Amino acid sequence: MNRLFHVPLSPFCRKVRLSLAEKKIEVELVEERYWEQQPEFMRRNPAGKVPVLKMGGRVMTESAAICEYIEEAHPQPALMPEGKDARFEVRRLVAWFDDKFHQEVTSKLLYERVNKKIMGRGYPESKNVKAGAQKIKYHLDYMGWLLDQRRWLAGDVMTLADFAAAAHLSALDYISDVDWNRSAVVKDWYAKIKSRPAFRSILADQVPGFPPPAHYADLDF
Amino acid sequence: MNRLFHVPLSPFCRKVRLSLAEKKIEVELVEERYWEQQPEFMRRNPAGKVPVLKMGGRVMTESAAICEYIEEAHPQPALMPEGKDARFEVRRLVAWFDDKFHQEVTSKLLYERVNKKIMGRGYPESKNVKAGAQKIKYHLDYMGWLLDQRRWLAGDVMTLADFAAAAHLSALDYISDVDWNRSAVVKDWYAKIKSRPAFRSILADQVPGFPPPAHYADLDF
Repeated sequence: MNRLFHVPLSPFCRKVRLSLAEKKIEVELVEERYWEQQPEFMRRNPAGKVPVLKMGGRVMTESAAICEYIEEAHPQPALMPEGKDARFEVRRLVAWFDDKFHQEVTSKLLYERVNKKIMGRGYPESKNVKAGAQKIKYHLDYMGWLLDQRRWLAGDVMTLADFAAAAHLSALDYISDVDWNRSAVVKDWYAKIKSRPAFRSILADQVPGFPPPAHYADLDF
Repeated sequence: MNRLFHVPLSPFCRKVRLSLAEKKIEVELVEERYWEQQPEFMRRNPAGKVPVLKMGGRVMTESAAICEYIEEAHPQPALMPEGKDARFEVRRLVAWFDDKFHQEVTSKLLYERVNKKIMGRGYPESKNVKAGAQKIKYHLDYMGWLLDQRRWLAGDVMTLADFAAAAHLSALDYISDVDWNRSAVVKDWYAKIKSRPAFRSILADQVPGFPPPAHYADLDF
């Protein structure tokens, strides 16, 4: 049986969960309190972070490398387009969300509000929360600008770039940090992706001490 | 003409330069003081960072996506192996160096000692420099452990993983922050990669105010 060691609100884990679910690859989800750095977990994964995917006898880390592997091992339904230009754009946007968006927004909002409490590392820094709340506007506008020209973020088909973005936004939506009224095209895009069967497991997530708002799992939000 | 906007000691730029040079793709190097965020540069690149590659009418950012693009556009000589398992290992290690190694070592040593001065952002924090000098030992040992089992970092052929690692280590070697006596296999590996024609431009780099040590460009270091 495939196993994914994860935490529910991690955008990197969610991206991998979405890829697996879209391709109908069954996986057992195992929550891993990776910040406690248990010896058994560290042995499997010297980088000490999640996601870690056990699949076909391999133990894999690094979410971008995992998603490329899943794509090569299970090409259908495709989450990478044909053509090197289109593939570049997908990889550029995955890096944009996992690097820039993560640093400017996710780490400032989700990590301050949720991870710190779960990990017992004190209270949110309001300076960071404010900075994240400011920056997410710019990112939503950038997504809106892309979606004015394209059906999906990287082009005319749904790709890993959409899953990377949806992984971050869904985690932030769990703590009501996304203003869906800012951009109608972004809201439409999220409604489309949220209604996919692959999204169900993510909408069912529950983090003790942090009940999700009613709109979180509502397809008509 | 292809153009690469870069800074000489950036490991992300060096990785792209090595890929281009190994494939004999000619490129004009343009130094870009990206931290000054000049409007013309920001227009080309909303992420505001280097490398930025202009190639065949495209403007590309994100070094990992750029390297995958170069590989798809110019497959020979190959820097990605055949086979999904081998390709996974390359991508995992590229992420290891560009994410974990960068955060734990490069940002603590190179950025403190060089970038801060060039950017006019004050003096090195000795706490960070100490932490980086400590962590590089662990990383050199990890590389040694890999190279005890393999000819190159990701397997039996040279790949992007070797270029990612060499990009970081060469930048740190420019400021004498690599102890080559720590691991004989790592030193042998670096000697092999350093002697490739693709490495020449990197060994010729000069940063005003920071003359490289004599051993930096010496193939018999």
